[in-house]
Amino acid sequence: MSQLIEESIVDGVAHVTLCRPDAYNSLSMELMTALTEALVNYDSDESVRVVVIAGAGKGFCAGHDLKQMIAADSTEFNETTFKQCSTLMQTIVNLSVPVIAQVHGVATAAGCQLVASCDLAFAAQSARFGTPGVNIGLFCSTPMVALTRAVQPKHAMELLLTGQLIGAERAVEMGLINQHVEDETLNSHVASVAQLIASKSRKTLTIGKQAFNQQRNLTLESAYEHCSQVMVDNMQTDDAQEGIAAFIEKRHPKWRHS
Amino acid sequence: MSQLIEESIVDGVAHVTLCRPDAYNSLSMELMTALTEALVNYDSDESVRVVVIAGAGKGFCAGHDLKQMIAADSTEFNETTFKQCSTLMQTIVNLSVPVIAQVHGVATAAGCQLVASCDLAFAAQSARFGTPGVNIGLFCSTPMVALTRAVQPKHAMELLLTGQLIGAERAVEMGLINQHVEDETLNSHVASVAQLIASKSRKTLTIGKQAFNQQRNLTLESAYEHCSQVMVDNMQTDDAQEGIAAFIEKRHPKWRHS
Amino acid sequence: MSQLIEESIVDGVAHVTLCRPDAYNSLSMELMTALTEALVNYDSDESVRVVVIAGAGKGFCAGHDLKQMIAADSTEFNETTFKQCSTLMQTIVNLSVPVIAQVHGVATAAGCQLVASCDLAFAAQSARFGTPGVNIGLFCSTPMVALTRAVQPKHAMELLLTGQLIGAERAVEMGLINQHVEDETLNSHVASVAQLIASKSRKTLTIGKQAFNQQRNLTLESAYEHCSQVMVDNMQTDDAQEGIAAFIEKRHPKWRHS
Repeated sequence: MSQLIEESIVDGVAHVTLCRPDAYNSLSMELMTALTEALVNYDSDESVRVVVIAGAGKGFCAGHDLKQMIAADSTEFNETTFKQCSTLMQTIVNLSVPVIAQVHGVATAAGCQLVASCDLAFAAQSARFGTPGVNIGLFCSTPMVALTRAVQPKHAMELLLTGQLIGAERAVEMGLINQHVEDETLNSHVASVAQLIASKSRKTLTIGKQAFNQQRNLTLESAYEHCSQVMVDNMQTDDAQEGIAAFIEKRHPKWRHS
Repeated sequence: MSQLIEESIVDGVAHVTLCRPDAYNSLSMELMTALTEALVNYDSDESVRVVVIAGAGKGFCAGHDLKQMIAADSTEFNETTFKQCSTLMQTIVNLSVPVIAQVHGVATAAGCQLVASCDLAFAAQSARFGTPGVNIGLFCSTPMVALTRAVQPKHAMELLLTGQLIGAERAVEMGLINQHVEDETLNSHVASVAQLIASKSRKTLTIGKQAFNQQRNLTLESAYEHCSQVMVDNMQTDDAQEGIAAFIEKRHPKWRHS
Repeated sequence: MSQLIEESIVDGVAHVTLCRPDAYNSLSMELMTALTEALVNYDSDESVRVVVIAGAGKGFCAGHDLKQMIAADSTEFNETTFKQCSTLMQTIVNLSVPVIAQVHGVATAAGCQLVASCDLAFAAQSARFGTPGVNIGLFCSTPMVALTRAVQPKHAMELLLTGQLIGAERAVEMGLINQHVEDETLNSHVASVAQLIASKSRKTLTIGKQAFNQQRNLTLESAYEHCSQVMVDNMQTDDAQEGIAAFIEKRHPKWRHS
């Protein structure tokens, strides 16, 4: 079995690449497991401050590995597949550090879900996005979970009901991705954003991302109560003390938890 | 009494047109009842795979029939009106097949609510949208329910507080509609989108639309649990089996539940 | 102590200006208290139908007064600061009349939160927005509460994780503000929008804004039940009776509760 993912950690940026290029990086059970394990490792690795997910070959990710599912021909295997996929997506959302999707080629079905689940997403001008399950009688219901939490309802329905692919420009309009750039500059653009985020304090990033998830479904009043306490606690961390001091002294901060 | 709605069902597309052109298709009690009944019929009609709502005459729909409400001059009638309107809007949202708004001219107040309630919406370039109730001392509070679930808060407030109409381009920016097209191509454009959706399996569309509503207000974890089961069940339907087989065999699927 | 805010009430428009221009109107405890008190007064002042918040000097508001917080060097003071800030923001959201942010220069951290908390926001072309707390090790967790309720998740994360400022055009795309205008026309543009809203019935505006908040987190069914009753009650107010009569008689309404 060849390597399913490629990993590197440089200057706080964990770069993980899906490596099933002959299958458009479709999410076989083994690939989902490998990616989830890599992410769980980054979660506790103090040297990782941001994660970038990319795809090898012609595209980002074309969704589930239908061939594997058909070969298994088992309800139990299907259940395990969607369970593993849901675990993977929630691992991204709940990871203590930010996750960036670096998208080229196609990001379809569970591949589009992966984009929707990341904190930030950047795409090549020529990238295309979609949830085409409806075309084969299998509505993209689990991708919908991520999609409806990332974009407005009519935009989600546009993708889900027509099954058609949209371009990177439309994906920006929808807020599915943050920005599209020239194809040849995608890698360097994502690298610069990742480096920018990796220049922050890990402790601060983890406080923020955790609070983001915690406050999201609370009432306004409860959200303010919770996040006020988060701010008070954050103020007491070494890194906030250092950051504020550096700001006043007009110098670069030196994070303890970097 | 002349006909309040016109209906046709061709190749899986139910086309229903509001027919009170002299009153800008304002939603009299009778019209709301007729439209709701038509929708309920489509819900159980296996030959209908998508619904298009359009308006006859100069515009799509100018909201409630104020003249009727004033003539009735009764709190009870008002109560029945808003209750019927809320039933109509929720019938659209909960209909088992997708509903598309085809908008020309004005879509105001409950007419704008109709657009916001549909799964997809397309408009003529010259169409205009608004919730002008504030201008007559009657805040568009029920249209607001649909509007705030379709667009971002500041966009909803822009319409609700100023009472001004916006153009189709701004409506696209807000995500209130999916797209605007040249006035003369509106009908053919909507027809092509409707035909595209009608080419899918009815069973699959209903699974998807129901899951969309069911998962929307759940926590991420519960939404994934629910939709994973939906996917597993969907996989076992005849139409998914056929769709996947057709995909692998590179042929068009022949839906059983079409 | 010089005056922390400047106030004027003209033709139904309360204009309140943050007046700490040497500190980019940063929100000292005293400024937050003064602004909150002013807003609470407008809430019960029948002559106020809309509020505009602006900033004196080079920018709108640069967030909390870090110098004051550092000087205090006390967890208790920090707690009081974030509590007061949360009270201020919720006072804006829950105010019975609409609040407009008039933004020039920078609106950062709690200043950006102020913009996100207002019902409408207009900005000068050259204005910039951001939540740069992450740069000093202090994640903008309380601004995040307002931001995530105003814009889509990836847009909120773009601001929160990178700490970079965005321009007015991007803020419009995100729906953080309604519109940007030429710098020199900002004041007159906001004045015209404020006058438009101030021409409505105060009673109607308060009914609408209250209902907006009440229905927002309800299920669709509960939201419709609640807002249907709001509409029925609104119909019975003097101002709706007058507004509808004026509409039919093609004349300008004369509000009782104006």
